[in-house]
Amino acid sequence: MPIRVGVIGAGVMGADHIRNLSTTISGAEVTFVADLDAGRAAAAAPPSARITTDPSELINSSDVDAVVVASHDSTHAGLVLECFEAMTPVLCEKPLAPTLLESREVVEAEADLLAATGARLLSMGFMRRFDPGYVALREATRARTQGEPLQVHCTSRTVSAGPGASSESAITNSAIHELDIIPWLLDSPITEVSWQAGRSSRYSTGDLRDPAFMLLRAADGTLATLELFLNAQYGYTTRCEVVSEFGTAALPEPAALDVRQEGKRSSEIPADWRPRFADAYRLQLQAWISALEKGEPAPLATGEDGLRASQLAQGMIRSLHSDGAYTKVIY
Amino acid sequence: MPIRVGVIGAGVMGADHIRNLSTTISGAEVTFVADLDAGRAAAAAPPSARITTDPSELINSSDVDAVVVASHDSTHAGLVLECFEAMTPVLCEKPLAPTLLESREVVEAEADLLAATGARLLSMGFMRRFDPGYVALREATRARTQGEPLQVHCTSRTVSAGPGASSESAITNSAIHELDIIPWLLDSPITEVSWQAGRSSRYSTGDLRDPAFMLLRAADGTLATLELFLNAQYGYTTRCEVVSEFGTAALPEPAALDVRQEGKRSSEIPADWRPRFADAYRLQLQAWISALEKGEPAPLATGEDGLRASQLAQGMIRSLHSDGAYTKVIY
Amino acid sequence: MPIRVGVIGAGVMGADHIRNLSTTISGAEVTFVADLDAGRAAAAAPPSARITTDPSELINSSDVDAVVVASHDSTHAGLVLECFEAMTPVLCEKPLAPTLLESREVVEAEADLLAATGARLLSMGFMRRFDPGYVALREATRARTQGEPLQVHCTSRTVSAGPGASSESAITNSAIHELDIIPWLLDSPITEVSWQAGRSSRYSTGDLRDPAFMLLRAADGTLATLELFLNAQYGYTTRCEVVSEFGTAALPEPAALDVRQEGKRSSEIPADWRPRFADAYRLQLQAWISALEKGEPAPLATGEDGLRASQLAQGMIRSLHSDGAYTKVIY
Amino acid sequence: MPIRVGVIGAGVMGADHIRNLSTTISGAEVTFVADLDAGRAAAAAPPSARITTDPSELINSSDVDAVVVASHDSTHAGLVLECFEAMTPVLCEKPLAPTLLESREVVEAEADLLAATGARLLSMGFMRRFDPGYVALREATRARTQGEPLQVHCTSRTVSAGPGASSESAITNSAIHELDIIPWLLDSPITEVSWQAGRSSRYSTGDLRDPAFMLLRAADGTLATLELFLNAQYGYTTRCEVVSEFGTAALPEPAALDVRQEGKRSSEIPADWRPRFADAYRLQLQAWISALEKGEPAPLATGEDGLRASQLAQGMIRSLHSDGAYTKVIY
Repeated sequence: MPIRVGVIGAGVMGADHIRNLSTTISGAEVTFVADLDAGRAAAAAPPSARITTDPSELINSSDVDAVVVASHDSTHAGLVLECFEAMTPVLCEKPLAPTLLESREVVEAEADLLAATGARLLSMGFMRRFDPGYVALREATRARTQGEPLQVHCTSRTVSAGPGASSESAITNSAIHELDIIPWLLDSPITEVSWQAGRSSRYSTGDLRDPAFMLLRAADGTLATLELFLNAQYGYTTRCEVVSEFGTAALPEPAALDVRQEGKRSSEIPADWRPRFADAYRLQLQAWISALEKGEPAPLATGEDGLRASQLAQGMIRSLHSDGAYTKVIY
Repeated sequence: MPIRVGVIGAGVMGADHIRNLSTTISGAEVTFVADLDAGRAAAAAPPSARITTDPSELINSSDVDAVVVASHDSTHAGLVLECFEAMTPVLCEKPLAPTLLESREVVEAEADLLAATGARLLSMGFMRRFDPGYVALREATRARTQGEPLQVHCTSRTVSAGPGASSESAITNSAIHELDIIPWLLDSPITEVSWQAGRSSRYSTGDLRDPAFMLLRAADGTLATLELFLNAQYGYTTRCEVVSEFGTAALPEPAALDVRQEGKRSSEIPADWRPRFADAYRLQLQAWISALEKGEPAPLATGEDGLRASQLAQGMIRSLHSDGAYTKVIY
Repeated sequence: MPIRVGVIGAGVMGADHIRNLSTTISGAEVTFVADLDAGRAAAAAPPSARITTDPSELINSSDVDAVVVASHDSTHAGLVLECFEAMTPVLCEKPLAPTLLESREVVEAEADLLAATGARLLSMGFMRRFDPGYVALREATRARTQGEPLQVHCTSRTVSAGPGASSESAITNSAIHELDIIPWLLDSPITEVSWQAGRSSRYSTGDLRDPAFMLLRAADGTLATLELFLNAQYGYTTRCEVVSEFGTAALPEPAALDVRQEGKRSSEIPADWRPRFADAYRLQLQAWISALEKGEPAPLATGEDGLRASQLAQGMIRSLHSDGAYTKVIY
Repeated sequence: MPIRVGVIGAGVMGADHIRNLSTTISGAEVTFVADLDAGRAAAAAPPSARITTDPSELINSSDVDAVVVASHDSTHAGLVLECFEAMTPVLCEKPLAPTLLESREVVEAEADLLAATGARLLSMGFMRRFDPGYVALREATRARTQGEPLQVHCTSRTVSAGPGASSESAITNSAIHELDIIPWLLDSPITEVSWQAGRSSRYSTGDLRDPAFMLLRAADGTLATLELFLNAQYGYTTRCEVVSEFGTAALPEPAALDVRQEGKRSSEIPADWRPRFADAYRLQLQAWISALEKGEPAPLATGEDGLRASQLAQGMIRSLHSDGAYTKVIY
């Protein structure tokens, strides 16, 4: 019998999860979709699925074996806690919560649950951990085939910042991916961070300083950097290069047709993250469903990972308010 | 309810299909596996599946909604005809049959079936039609964004020829992919072909002349070429470039880590076709299963496509025996 | 004392040679420029140089130590013979002559001169032999680091055919570069050739079939191919890949800024051959001048090389008039 | 008449200049070579040149029209001042001097000379300004075809640090190239800098922290970064990417044969800077000689440029001794 999944939130990301679960994942079906906008829920849901505007109804439904939380960030923590009460496995889109307080509350609740019942219900949607390029880069790094890693250079660019974006939300919503992936790549926690920025693009509005440049020091001494540019205009770009003692390894350039026309050799750069990470989203969902089928622990990022990324984000925000000074991360 | 698939043949390709159907395809489960070697069947099958050494038992089982034929080429036609009798949808790995006679027999049987029952049961496993690179190349070609196509250049290299490979089997087993894909890309049938070869590699044995070089003329006048090199040693390579009136477009170079070490920038080239076409196999199976779920015609290559590729292969073999002379393709 | 060079022909190529000799070559100065159009000669010549409309005056001048012939193809043979009479070293732009008869006459005259005086005066301007990419490709091929070469694939595209271009002139003027470079790369003479074409571009006029596709068989059995596309519109492209027994080597993609803008990663492709072969022209001229300074034989292509390329071109033209049949090259 | 050049210092760099001036530069000849080691001078000098162990003899010789200083860094300032006294044009390899005091003394002496005689005698060997990639990058940046530049990311890696290298000498000898090129690219002076490092390579010895990571803020607000890694082992690498408001542009990857062998696609990375910057050195020398021939000001970096780079280096060293704090550059 397929795992019956309820999806909360039918926006861009939720709709993508629904489509994946319904059409490209082995062993799953979407039986219930919740969205504050019932029309949006209906548009995204497969024909056979139930629809609601009340996520609690979905979480507690006997038609649902597992839940995906893809609703607004501010609702994540509460919905995850409801899933705990219902003893339902949940895959929560990043971030775990917009505040550290809530993130910690969730992680503590999960620890209590684990102690009381032995169940681990929460998985975090840090899908880059399933991107084949990142996986290969991590394997190469861990195998030390080029000696010890010394520096890591990341680039993260999107076409344009969302409405109301600020330098802080750029950290908690976008840089959060690198805040998760860098210690995962290095297998070493980040101890201190520094946030910097120079001239901002004409497309930056409000208090968003864009692009930013961040530095992270790992416990093993590795220095990592991140250029984060939300309003890069030209296309979506994710890069990561690990510089080790006798060699370097970098994520592959995404494959695209090699076109020669009008005096140029060119290849298309996608406008958003979905083509770039389509495999990662699919493989993450499949790993989650397959683990549920087998009753095994899901090999996804955990609540603790989500909390750690939020703690790193908090450190980065403190640096941003301290004129870029290196700031210890408080775990 | 998932589509219950029986897989005939549990060799490299069959095992790959079983793994895909069991772990990465939405809406399918493998319920039955047949192989002359019962141990091989058992090793490849999921725990819940039945096992047999008799493919007819599988085809006629009430546990099977659809069949994948991945057994020895010489068995394809007979098994497909059995599926027709059982009115069971079947995905047949290429080639449809090693002989034109058998291929034609199957296609005629399917036409009779279609006339009698309205059913189209046969899909062919020309998976490159689902490779995202080829799909993009075909779209660009059909959109005529660079004017009319004029020449197409293909390269197909494998690490080593299988045991007993001959210049003929190199055409019917390997070049067959390009014989299918070139007219599909151009949307124009191939009218004549020429087979050529120069010096052969020291790794060629028997009557295999390797590498070969083939030319194909399409009805629309486009000239296509194919370098086919089975014993290329260094790795698996598939290339295709379409040269049009004011530009060119080529398949992307497959993505791999960009490594710099010991005086070289390098990236890995896989040793066989599975990593290169993993997406294509998965997407082809998914398209087949999804069509079966919806009761729609499968968007895969058809028996007619399989026959046409075999007819092209026959023309190429006639040219090979005519000192490379251009030879009309007889459809 | 610098070598005093007289340049005959002040068109695009002649002006380029004058500029190189005057501003980037060690040990040379341009002292005399001849062109039927005196104004064009004056515009291209350095201020201190003499000007004439009579090339014989230049060849026989005591102000000239060596001559570059870059005038119309039809004048090449006659001017080279005049240089022989004047005992003046001469660098003749390709082709040696438009007809085989003239080419052979020049080569025989040079042989007589060599027998009588020991002097080798003629160098041919096949500049690709000095392109660092081709040089590296030849070294790798000759070192057999990948075993024996088996196939060679060349691509030659220009933006547009010159006025009055025909399928024949495309061979004698453009393909001539590959007709020289392929046997030079392989160190094996070409024995037979085949000329083919498919659909022609809408930009082809007169009897020009464009693009064409040529096949060449070397004495060592290697099969070489050439796509020649004069009206490729998009830019100038030269490619060459040598396929050997356990690996392949190809000319590098020319370096250009890596630009990302408007949804595309792109790099510029030059519109003509000069940027692509600027190094080759410079290095060829320098090698010629340095040899003259030292009184050593010039390491450039010889008259015999020029004759052989013309003989290959003749074979290709015979194939073109024989419906693409393989045609023996008559040396 | 060619410009007669005297070269002081016949080490790796001096020998390269001698070879270039003798064999690939128009209008120059090397007439005099000075080195403390007469044998080394003789080995590097062309046969017709004089040899000395006394640089003053060379500077004041009537056989010398212009001087190249490529001796030990500690001798640069004194030799340049001697050239001023002799009123001889001089091309001084970087750095102008190891200390700011000396650099300033030279620049002041040159200003006095200019005031007194109108002569500008000093050119600095910042050859990257003549690298075609950097030139194209600067043109694109200045044309603002992608809007205002916002960040610049540089990478500079060498195979191994020289004997006795320290974190300071890594700045004054290696990073000095980027300290010159970044403000040149941006056309905006650097106002403050920060030096950082993480874990050092096992190949670092003494007080060398390697790799380092540097940040530079330009007056126009652009933030530039530099990864400097002397012991990178794998090969020589120079990268530079300019991130602007609606696009990015980066130096091209150097051209090298594209080789496929043993499961890898690879291209060679040179072991030192000479192949990477061969064109730049040649074009710089040619620009210097051509200007001398015409009596025009040389379009090379000036003494002021050399001084500014040293001032930046001093700021960077102060940051290094201030735990990485941003440090104002004192001009």
